[in-house]
Amino acid sequence: MKTVNIGILGCGTVGSGVLKTLAANGGWIEKRENLKIHVKRILVNDLAKERPEGYPKSIFTDDPEEVLGDSGIDIIVEMLSGENPAADYILRAIASGKPVVTSNKSVVAARWNDIMTASRGGRHVFFDASVCGGIPIISILSNSMQANRINRVLGIINGTTNYILTRMSKDGAQFGDALAQAKRLGFAEADATADVEGFDAASKLSIIASLVAGRHVPVGSIYREGISKIDEVDISIGKELGFTLKMLAIAAIRDDAVEARVHPAFIPSKHPLASVSDSFNAVFIDGNAVGELMLYGRGAGDLPTASSVISDIITAAKTIGADTPGVINTTEETVAAGDWESEYYIRMTVPDRPGVLSKIAGVFSEHRISISSLIQKGFDTPHVPLVFVTHPCSKNAMLDALAKIADSPEVVSVDNLIHVVR
Amino acid sequence: MKTVNIGILGCGTVGSGVLKTLAANGGWIEKRENLKIHVKRILVNDLAKERPEGYPKSIFTDDPEEVLGDSGIDIIVEMLSGENPAADYILRAIASGKPVVTSNKSVVAARWNDIMTASRGGRHVFFDASVCGGIPIISILSNSMQANRINRVLGIINGTTNYILTRMSKDGAQFGDALAQAKRLGFAEADATADVEGFDAASKLSIIASLVAGRHVPVGSIYREGISKIDEVDISIGKELGFTLKMLAIAAIRDDAVEARVHPAFIPSKHPLASVSDSFNAVFIDGNAVGELMLYGRGAGDLPTASSVISDIITAAKTIGADTPGVINTTEETVAAGDWESEYYIRMTVPDRPGVLSKIAGVFSEHRISISSLIQKGFDTPHVPLVFVTHPCSKNAMLDALAKIADSPEVVSVDNLIHVVR
Repeated sequence: MKTVNIGILGCGTVGSGVLKTLAANGGWIEKRENLKIHVKRILVNDLAKERPEGYPKSIFTDDPEEVLGDSGIDIIVEMLSGENPAADYILRAIASGKPVVTSNKSVVAARWNDIMTASRGGRHVFFDASVCGGIPIISILSNSMQANRINRVLGIINGTTNYILTRMSKDGAQFGDALAQAKRLGFAEADATADVEGFDAASKLSIIASLVAGRHVPVGSIYREGISKIDEVDISIGKELGFTLKMLAIAAIRDDAVEARVHPAFIPSKHPLASVSDSFNAVFIDGNAVGELMLYGRGAGDLPTASSVISDIITAAKTIGADTPGVINTTEETVAAGDWESEYYIRMTVPDRPGVLSKIAGVFSEHRISISSLIQKGFDTPHVPLVFVTHPCSKNAMLDALAKIADSPEVVSVDNLIHVVR
Repeated sequence: MKTVNIGILGCGTVGSGVLKTLAANGGWIEKRENLKIHVKRILVNDLAKERPEGYPKSIFTDDPEEVLGDSGIDIIVEMLSGENPAADYILRAIASGKPVVTSNKSVVAARWNDIMTASRGGRHVFFDASVCGGIPIISILSNSMQANRINRVLGIINGTTNYILTRMSKDGAQFGDALAQAKRLGFAEADATADVEGFDAASKLSIIASLVAGRHVPVGSIYREGISKIDEVDISIGKELGFTLKMLAIAAIRDDAVEARVHPAFIPSKHPLASVSDSFNAVFIDGNAVGELMLYGRGAGDLPTASSVISDIITAAKTIGADTPGVINTTEETVAAGDWESEYYIRMTVPDRPGVLSKIAGVFSEHRISISSLIQKGFDTPHVPLVFVTHPCSKNAMLDALAKIADSPEVVSVDNLIHVVR
């Protein structure tokens, strides 16, 4: 049996999950893969802290040198969080010719070009665990979709926002209450900004979009809206229209540009993504050969993420000494789409009197926006909510039209604008 | 750029799909993978038949020797149907040291041990397209789930039966009408026995279960029931109980045996598989690290299947000359489970008079079967339908109990027995 010695950087949630899974399933892996994964050294912050059972105290260290500089280690497994010092550790391991496995989305997204260039197009660098925990989306995009032009990827790739929107949709909760509940149950951190405002999803989408587009799509080029603006009334009106609200990450490829965006969106309630509830993640791929393909599973958590890390370790072990090709293009520039076509849901408050609708419809028409449905809620009150759903139109035209409508004396307020994605 | 020469055996639906996809996406594949896939020879039955555009007449042949014996061909791509002569061609290609890609479930299921032994544990043999068309289930089980003990795989792996059950469930159609509709629309063949009675699903399950169990699970060891016994009334009573009826393929691993079975089953309507409709396929994996993972997509069709074939060709091309390990165990014997625990739905017709229920309940109790719900439909008619749902019990105990109940003078008929899977 072949033995591979691994050096681990970081023993937080994911690192502990890897140690526990290797302890529980290591024998099975040896039998199935004819490979023994031996944990030689583990870098930790705090040597005094309790660690998973089955690993001698002596292999834990707080000195990165004892892991990175150990010539007996075959593979470096980086499970820290944040860009630094992880980037230096990864680049140093690549330079020393060792395969690298990482679960760290921040460093992969932020340092994509450095890592891919150093590894000559992704040779011996494995990052399936950096996106969507246990869902092998990176592996599928890299190794199972090569025959396809990918038209579009739609993802529910943040468990916290999916949990909050599920509560709002199923229980009629308002955003603030659903967020508070998510925090109580451990589905959201005390400061939930990174999740709620889409920063976490944008990091993951940067990695997915870079693979799909075949060129780096930096986080900074991704359009981003959070879910804090969503009112329960929007979700409830959306239901009447046959829609379910989800926080989507979208990568769509055009000939000349990449559309990469993270925002709440209404999707048809019959869409396979609509039934992805609670903290589950899912990624929906539209390829020109495969058609529609969806992966659904646990996008976070110690053991699901460990599943992806260990799978990458096994794949990495098989590539040691092999001349695997690097397939990631690092030379082309990304052109981020500044505009796109979308259907929209618009909710506004207007006085209940003749002429208002014709005025608003006139502004939409001037901007070449046509309306597919209209709902007016409530009658015999001075102000009523008015909801439009449009046919596909330019996002920028929509923003221009809404600015004009908001300024108009016929309109009390423009309350929400939400993408509709089919 | 590297060029790989492929020899194709069979140019039916899948073969034509591969030629079309290579013609459409070949340039993109060259750019992304730095690999040119060159189709050198194509074995067909009928040289006169029209073939996809972009391939010279001269590369088509009706002589297998011109493909198998061509030393300039690097990879053999077998897309015939049925076990013979495909098995001979595959074994001959393996013996000559060439990687083999196959989309043929019959030959992989029937000749698993021969193929895996000849290829020293699956080295250079690729069969992702043989199961579930465009869904990369083989690749995921082989290359992304290695860290897991797989507890169970549940699959909707036959599009025809899923289409028929969807029509029965959504439109209230009876089996015969839904089958006729499926034939009219091309979702079922004129002789639909292989689909409707579960033979097609059993072939696919044999391959999935063999990978999951790490030893060959022959088609003959798979328990099989078809859907022709399903009445629309069962589906409709199931809905009241919170169930959706699906044709499931199940591979469950026990310490000492493999449970492999294909049968209609009620699943909770909230289960992710319950929303898999029409001719779509899905595979739900329960692994001890990854938790719940589901793949959803097109399980058949020319282009989805071509997506998997071409992906396998690219993977095969990368392994040429490499010492890839074979990980498939061919030495252990399979012990097929002859009994298992399941919940059951039982529908029977009984006279509407006192004492009947206590008699039936008594028989269940003697067989250690306990009841979780009971519905009686209709009153004031001499005979009424009675539906039981049980707690988990032994399948064999259930069959014994039902034989006794069917013989009892208190019961008019036992009308249906359906597994309930959660």
